[in-house]
Amino acid sequence: MSNLDAVIQELVIANRILAREDVVDAYGHVSVRHPGDPNRFLIARSLAPELVGPEDIVELDLDGQPVRSEDRALYLERFIHAAIFAARPDVMAAVHAHAEDTLPFGIAQEVKLRPVIHSGSFIGTEVPVWDIADNFGDTNLLVTNMAQANDLAKCLGGHSVALMRGHGFAAAALSLIEVVRLSVYLPRNARALMRAMQLGGEIKYLSQGEIAARNRGYRPYSVETWRTWEYWAKKAGCGHLLSRPEG
Amino acid sequence: MSNLDAVIQELVIANRILAREDVVDAYGHVSVRHPGDPNRFLIARSLAPELVGPEDIVELDLDGQPVRSEDRALYLERFIHAAIFAARPDVMAAVHAHAEDTLPFGIAQEVKLRPVIHSGSFIGTEVPVWDIADNFGDTNLLVTNMAQANDLAKCLGGHSVALMRGHGFAAAALSLIEVVRLSVYLPRNARALMRAMQLGGEIKYLSQGEIAARNRGYRPYSVETWRTWEYWAKKAGCGHLLSRPEG
Amino acid sequence: MSNLDAVIQELVIANRILAREDVVDAYGHVSVRHPGDPNRFLIARSLAPELVGPEDIVELDLDGQPVRSEDRALYLERFIHAAIFAARPDVMAAVHAHAEDTLPFGIAQEVKLRPVIHSGSFIGTEVPVWDIADNFGDTNLLVTNMAQANDLAKCLGGHSVALMRGHGFAAAALSLIEVVRLSVYLPRNARALMRAMQLGGEIKYLSQGEIAARNRGYRPYSVETWRTWEYWAKKAGCGHLLSRPEG
Amino acid sequence: MSNLDAVIQELVIANRILAREDVVDAYGHVSVRHPGDPNRFLIARSLAPELVGPEDIVELDLDGQPVRSEDRALYLERFIHAAIFAARPDVMAAVHAHAEDTLPFGIAQEVKLRPVIHSGSFIGTEVPVWDIADNFGDTNLLVTNMAQANDLAKCLGGHSVALMRGHGFAAAALSLIEVVRLSVYLPRNARALMRAMQLGGEIKYLSQGEIAARNRGYRPYSVETWRTWEYWAKKAGCGHLLSRPEG
Repeated sequence: MSNLDAVIQELVIANRILAREDVVDAYGHVSVRHPGDPNRFLIARSLAPELVGPEDIVELDLDGQPVRSEDRALYLERFIHAAIFAARPDVMAAVHAHAEDTLPFGIAQEVKLRPVIHSGSFIGTEVPVWDIADNFGDTNLLVTNMAQANDLAKCLGGHSVALMRGHGFAAAALSLIEVVRLSVYLPRNARALMRAMQLGGEIKYLSQGEIAARNRGYRPYSVETWRTWEYWAKKAGCGHLLSRPEG
Repeated sequence: MSNLDAVIQELVIANRILAREDVVDAYGHVSVRHPGDPNRFLIARSLAPELVGPEDIVELDLDGQPVRSEDRALYLERFIHAAIFAARPDVMAAVHAHAEDTLPFGIAQEVKLRPVIHSGSFIGTEVPVWDIADNFGDTNLLVTNMAQANDLAKCLGGHSVALMRGHGFAAAALSLIEVVRLSVYLPRNARALMRAMQLGGEIKYLSQGEIAARNRGYRPYSVETWRTWEYWAKKAGCGHLLSRPEG
Repeated sequence: MSNLDAVIQELVIANRILAREDVVDAYGHVSVRHPGDPNRFLIARSLAPELVGPEDIVELDLDGQPVRSEDRALYLERFIHAAIFAARPDVMAAVHAHAEDTLPFGIAQEVKLRPVIHSGSFIGTEVPVWDIADNFGDTNLLVTNMAQANDLAKCLGGHSVALMRGHGFAAAALSLIEVVRLSVYLPRNARALMRAMQLGGEIKYLSQGEIAARNRGYRPYSVETWRTWEYWAKKAGCGHLLSRPEG
Repeated sequence: MSNLDAVIQELVIANRILAREDVVDAYGHVSVRHPGDPNRFLIARSLAPELVGPEDIVELDLDGQPVRSEDRALYLERFIHAAIFAARPDVMAAVHAHAEDTLPFGIAQEVKLRPVIHSGSFIGTEVPVWDIADNFGDTNLLVTNMAQANDLAKCLGGHSVALMRGHGFAAAALSLIEVVRLSVYLPRNARALMRAMQLGGEIKYLSQGEIAARNRGYRPYSVETWRTWEYWAKKAGCGHLLSRPEG
């Protein structure tokens, strides 16, 4: 299997896991930078992630336009990915989704979403909230062009995830496995924080040092990370697509 | 397939999706105006929506009475649909359901249910709450005649959805796909709002302009809307009934 | 099929529905008065309700003792049913369960569980809370003899359901279908009330007159009630056991 | 079947139940002391508990090191189990997991997790909270050596369960069945307490005497306990692995 085929297969697994783990429904998407050309990225055509197969993956450039002639419909919000890949050379994979339990933190903006559980550390010390209304006024809230997407990417900055007010979130990471992991644990961290706040009293967030220690120790193909990836893939019914890179 | 058959098939799909997405259980129903006669509508006989097939669809007039002789039992609350179709010539499809997370907003009436997430925009700027007790005193809360149903339709007015105190909601839209979508996202919007309120601080609702922008951009057979309809139908085990109108 | 066989079959369905609808897990049980002898009742031997079949049903007297010699283990808390059938000649069926969302109202005793949704009306105007500690001091909280069970039945009085502090609830009704229905909607009503209270402001409970109107209109084999029973039985995988009494 | 084989089979069932009941996902593990050598314990190699089979069980010593040469990866946090077995000769089985609804009580430390439901009694009168930061500063929160594990075991002391701030919990009991039961009911008790607190007013916790009465009456192979174990095993798809010790 070529490297490109392996990456496409991993992207299919990522789609299915995000659907199975309730991060996406018919909406939401995941992308990966092209392994052979940093100015391109791979993402599904307009299709519910649970239904995505290798034949549904298309190649887009950093303006969100298809590299090859394509007559199938594309995601309206593919520009989110294009802008993140353009602004962040370090980023290899991105997710945009509407996971329900992340929404309250974009709506009640006085409360900050911050990591309180170890698996939530990858959201980083700060999660900015982007409000499309700030620079684009009254829209349908969708990110449908590069100007809006660039504005979102600017808000994301060097962070791992930005909440999008009344809409969802955009996440970026160094690998598909990492961005999926981050996207699955983001709503779980949100729930733990919401419930801790309801209990009342002082909240113990992860410290800056703890977040840094976790980031230092993280490798996407470590035994521990692979354990989850394998488990999630099997739960999502696509364990047969798994292939672990050597070394 | 005739146009009527296609509409019946779409209505069956709508029944199954509403069951699968937890909007209805054994109770709750969905209807569509007859494509050939605006004074009639189609709805299932008295049956749990998950079990509905094409042979279970009956044709009722705008008084909620069967057009043809019918010896199978009908929904007690079919009058809700009759009254909405009578009062609102623009409406092509209606839902009545008890979706759990909409109930608190009918019970704790000081808090208004309003859109806070983009997929909730279709509930509109205002969601009136109808209390059957206001005009009918102590009842079993069911809408079992045209007088009650007309009162509910009057409260609904030109809105998309009305909450029914201690009971559920009634929703109306320009197509089956729209009314199903609205009914699925209504409880999700309710949850997002409840949780944001628990976080505290100021809530950012969708603006009037955002709601209008979303309505302007909406078409029931657009790529994006169809993506969800197709996904939901497949999840509900009736993907084989899907047929997309041309053009 | 004899009347007794029909009742046993209905009891099996009741067991499976309560398991499928998350009212019971391995614990909790449902019983029905013997159709031919009011001094006996039918209940499963000690077995998780989801696993109960007709061969697992045993016949007990109103002291909770087996009518025929029985070497299989019986439910420790079968006395709850015996005491309710003894104290309440009107009652034909009973449930004891630990449904999670009913528990808070037994623990935080200043807040009363009362009906706020129409399907919750059958819990009645008042739901007493029984605390085993009041008359029996420090126990393991289980009702394991007739003295404790009679005390619970006394607290239940003429009501439909009593909460048991830190433990669960006991429900009684005129038929199996009614007691199952009550047990399924009890936690749903509890959730609706909890969430409405979190929204704040005044709560609109069902009025006394509404509760009475609903009770007046209720028949266990009506079209509407049967619709739910049939639906729940099919969901629970035992639709093939359904048989509707004539008339 | 030898006693060791029987214990291994029970450990496999424990793994599967904990996965099915949402106590563990890809992370979290369960162990049992070796039936023939109190200085060894059995635990799975690094694998998601849902996927564990008898061939995945390894034998470790009380330093968390494999007794036989082993080239498969081991759980990073196996030291938790080693330290508990070393510190507590009475303990025969242990669980470490991240069950979501236990997390808030480790984060909002002013509120104590205490038993409020009878099935939660086994968590005991006090649940200490261990914060790895207290003695080890900024870490990745994982317990990856014996010094950390011993510190956790010291905090656990003679209790049944310790919460681990921002991470999860460690539980210890006299048998596999007991530690699984405790781990399943721990989050359920946490939810009941959280919701009761949201209702407000005074909370009725289980009394010291009630907790003691429940502990006195408990036997892991009693009819009642076995009923749950059998039910959970069947739900988890491994009923065929069940074997009940005689007597």
